[in-house]
Amino acid sequence: MSLTVKLHLAAAATASPRLCSPRRRHRETGGAKLKNARPRAIYHANPLSHLARQPKMLGRNAVGTSSPSSIRSSLIDPDGGVLVDLVVPEKDRVLKAKEAEALPRARLTRIDLEWVHVISEGWASPLKGFMREDQYLQSLHFNCLRMEDGSVVNMSLPIVLAIDDGTKDAIGTSQDVALVGPDGDLLAILRSVEIYKHNKEERIARTWGTTAPGLPYVEEAITPAGNWLIGGDLEVLKPIKYNDGLDHYRLSPKQLRKEFDRRQADAVFAFQLRNPVHNGHALLMNDTRRRLLEMGFENPILLLHPLGGYTKADDVPLDVRMEQHSKVLEDGVLDPKTTVVSIFPSPMHYAGPTEVQWHAKARINAGANFYIVGRDPAGMGHPTEKRDLYDPDHGKKVLSMAPGLEKLNILPFKVAAYDMVEKKMAFFDPSRAKDFLFISGTKMRTFARNGENPPDGFMCPGGWEVLVKYYESLQAEETKQQATVLSA
Amino acid sequence: MSLTVKLHLAAAATASPRLCSPRRRHRETGGAKLKNARPRAIYHANPLSHLARQPKMLGRNAVGTSSPSSIRSSLIDPDGGVLVDLVVPEKDRVLKAKEAEALPRARLTRIDLEWVHVISEGWASPLKGFMREDQYLQSLHFNCLRMEDGSVVNMSLPIVLAIDDGTKDAIGTSQDVALVGPDGDLLAILRSVEIYKHNKEERIARTWGTTAPGLPYVEEAITPAGNWLIGGDLEVLKPIKYNDGLDHYRLSPKQLRKEFDRRQADAVFAFQLRNPVHNGHALLMNDTRRRLLEMGFENPILLLHPLGGYTKADDVPLDVRMEQHSKVLEDGVLDPKTTVVSIFPSPMHYAGPTEVQWHAKARINAGANFYIVGRDPAGMGHPTEKRDLYDPDHGKKVLSMAPGLEKLNILPFKVAAYDMVEKKMAFFDPSRAKDFLFISGTKMRTFARNGENPPDGFMCPGGWEVLVKYYESLQAEETKQQATVLSA
Repeated sequence: MSLTVKLHLAAAATASPRLCSPRRRHRETGGAKLKNARPRAIYHANPLSHLARQPKMLGRNAVGTSSPSSIRSSLIDPDGGVLVDLVVPEKDRVLKAKEAEALPRARLTRIDLEWVHVISEGWASPLKGFMREDQYLQSLHFNCLRMEDGSVVNMSLPIVLAIDDGTKDAIGTSQDVALVGPDGDLLAILRSVEIYKHNKEERIARTWGTTAPGLPYVEEAITPAGNWLIGGDLEVLKPIKYNDGLDHYRLSPKQLRKEFDRRQADAVFAFQLRNPVHNGHALLMNDTRRRLLEMGFENPILLLHPLGGYTKADDVPLDVRMEQHSKVLEDGVLDPKTTVVSIFPSPMHYAGPTEVQWHAKARINAGANFYIVGRDPAGMGHPTEKRDLYDPDHGKKVLSMAPGLEKLNILPFKVAAYDMVEKKMAFFDPSRAKDFLFISGTKMRTFARNGENPPDGFMCPGGWEVLVKYYESLQAEETKQQATVLSA
Repeated sequence: MSLTVKLHLAAAATASPRLCSPRRRHRETGGAKLKNARPRAIYHANPLSHLARQPKMLGRNAVGTSSPSSIRSSLIDPDGGVLVDLVVPEKDRVLKAKEAEALPRARLTRIDLEWVHVISEGWASPLKGFMREDQYLQSLHFNCLRMEDGSVVNMSLPIVLAIDDGTKDAIGTSQDVALVGPDGDLLAILRSVEIYKHNKEERIARTWGTTAPGLPYVEEAITPAGNWLIGGDLEVLKPIKYNDGLDHYRLSPKQLRKEFDRRQADAVFAFQLRNPVHNGHALLMNDTRRRLLEMGFENPILLLHPLGGYTKADDVPLDVRMEQHSKVLEDGVLDPKTTVVSIFPSPMHYAGPTEVQWHAKARINAGANFYIVGRDPAGMGHPTEKRDLYDPDHGKKVLSMAPGLEKLNILPFKVAAYDMVEKKMAFFDPSRAKDFLFISGTKMRTFARNGENPPDGFMCPGGWEVLVKYYESLQAEETKQQATVLSA
């Protein structure tokens, strides 16, 4: 399952495009100019979509007015109406840091730190800190939170902080707790804390739909964690940085919204990925743009949004992926003028239909109003059985029915594969199935490892070279380690 | 965990009564007559209750108008607005039965039959049959279903019908399927069927929050079941009867609503149980009535509503419980004038916070607008670990936050225990904790089995006698079986 390149970008036959273009609408109503028409959701997979509220696409009908910059950021409202920003203003930082010094402390793991990052920038808006028990229970049982006004926002993953018995004892009755990074530096204050039991078995079962051993996030972040969860309101002493040469890619939701404004986007479509981009991906991203243009949008912008937090050991590392993505843009496979490449700082759960909701919800907060979903999103092989952990179609079905995501336009993938006649990646044509080659992730990795080339047109040469070099360096490293062991 | 008498009827300190009586309201507004006042929810445990929509209590403000019978049935609307009734009208039965004869068949287990009963009478309104995949996924992931108008109804348990490979093959492409009872009689038709995969592991994990072996419903109804689920619209050829001498207790939601009308109830409070009633239960039911009267309700009716479907082997059987409940009313512990005793035909999942939502939702459909919830509702011991399977407080917390249950008034229990000074069951007074005796289910069973009496005032003598006789008959049966084995 490593390096899974999702070539099987299936959209079920039943979820076929239901195009409802503004042009057609325009003709029907015989009214306003095209640029003032209000496009409706395109090929929305939601079987209940005709029942749901019309997706909010605020400002769309105002395209072309004199003040575009005041419009663009309201392509889609952040969950809860206001984008959460928990970074302490610069002028207060010294004082807050001093206060934090005197508080009882909880030590964060690298994954905890990634969640602090995620929460502090508002990806999880309206969440203002690690979950207290009420929020945890709602997330676990309902995949959503009820807001003060009775409305509902999606929240499918429990975003929680575990502490052990010793930390709990040290906190005692303190209302506030200082959060200390993996390197020992004071990072944040958690206010008005609530400590409650961490029932790991129940959390795992309800989040993953299995308790089988071998779930990567569970083994990395839950099994070794403490038996208590601590919730509270977060104040982050300064923006989270990783100093890995990639921080400039880590745009916050606020920065992304600003960038979409600057580019005068009238539609933003997000593509979540944790794998190298091949030409099948590019095909569907470019095809999505074409469709949006056909619908009457004038400047749809692609948010190419690789996940940058924890991934399992055999996934391609972030720095390699970022280099590969750069090559894809350099080689012109994707158009830099209409593409924003940025890192999504969340860790990966590999929790399929439950996690894909989080992936979509976070992109709402970043200003994307269209979300592309493929086959088996956030899925993996069952850790102990020879099958996919999730039904490959459940992700997009669950996403299309998820409470709180009604305002987002869901775009299911079509299947792309290598067309051996045309010698390029193309949408699969079942009428000449034998002409198509499905290149699995394992196969692609074998190619790269053995220094072989995949078929022409599978991936741009520059991007492919990045992968080959990565696997060469891996093998060199292995050889070196073996030599060290032998000589020891 | 057998014969669990829930003496620990805890209400968390934080969920203390928030009484908001119509009298007080009346004084505040200085307005209309008390009988026209609109009482608000009493001690609602929902931490978000001040945020939620005002509970609908339709018709309450019309109490005292000239046409009470047209008002009473609208104490609370059934989910979806209309009570589902899937029993074929008498005039059509012969024709439908003939049609069913010609259809491919699926054989029901006893538990499947109980679900047919439940669905056909509208306990699961607006569900009109066994779940199709869209409904199943919504139930599993969100514990609720989205309706055509965008509103949400609670649906926490997947109500599904499993079939095996052979049955699936026999059904083939048929749109309709005949359902055959455990005894081979044609019971129903399932229309426009959809067959989809039965991922047992995922269903169990998401419903119970564990996959540990030993969950009673899982072992009885899921592990041995087929690998496919079949959904569709149900038509039941005639009302489901069990001919066990208890059918007269099995009032449908429609009949219950009629009965509440007949009694001119202006509030109905439901008490779900699967155990004998002791004086602690009675205390809190009577206390609830007292509080409702204090709030200005004039005729609150108790729905004493024992669960009558599948229960685990060491629970007290239904017929014994019904006899015990009769004695409790005969002995005057509960007042027959203000109590309706009826059987709730659902099978038991023992799925804690997930199941308690189903228990509450079904009672909405039966016309109850108040629901009493205790410690660890629908809970049991962990099947493989020495602890409760669920946090005993999670049931009422989850219930109070559950989507689609906002219109129901949740009444959390106070703790009742045996007061050794007063020699009766009383609300636990922590200031003199040593005077109180908590009699566990195991202890009560040991008393009954050994022919010992529990402390005076624990249970009415008539009710206690029923239990003693039951355990005597069990022992006689065991002795007889042992003798048979020895003589064989």
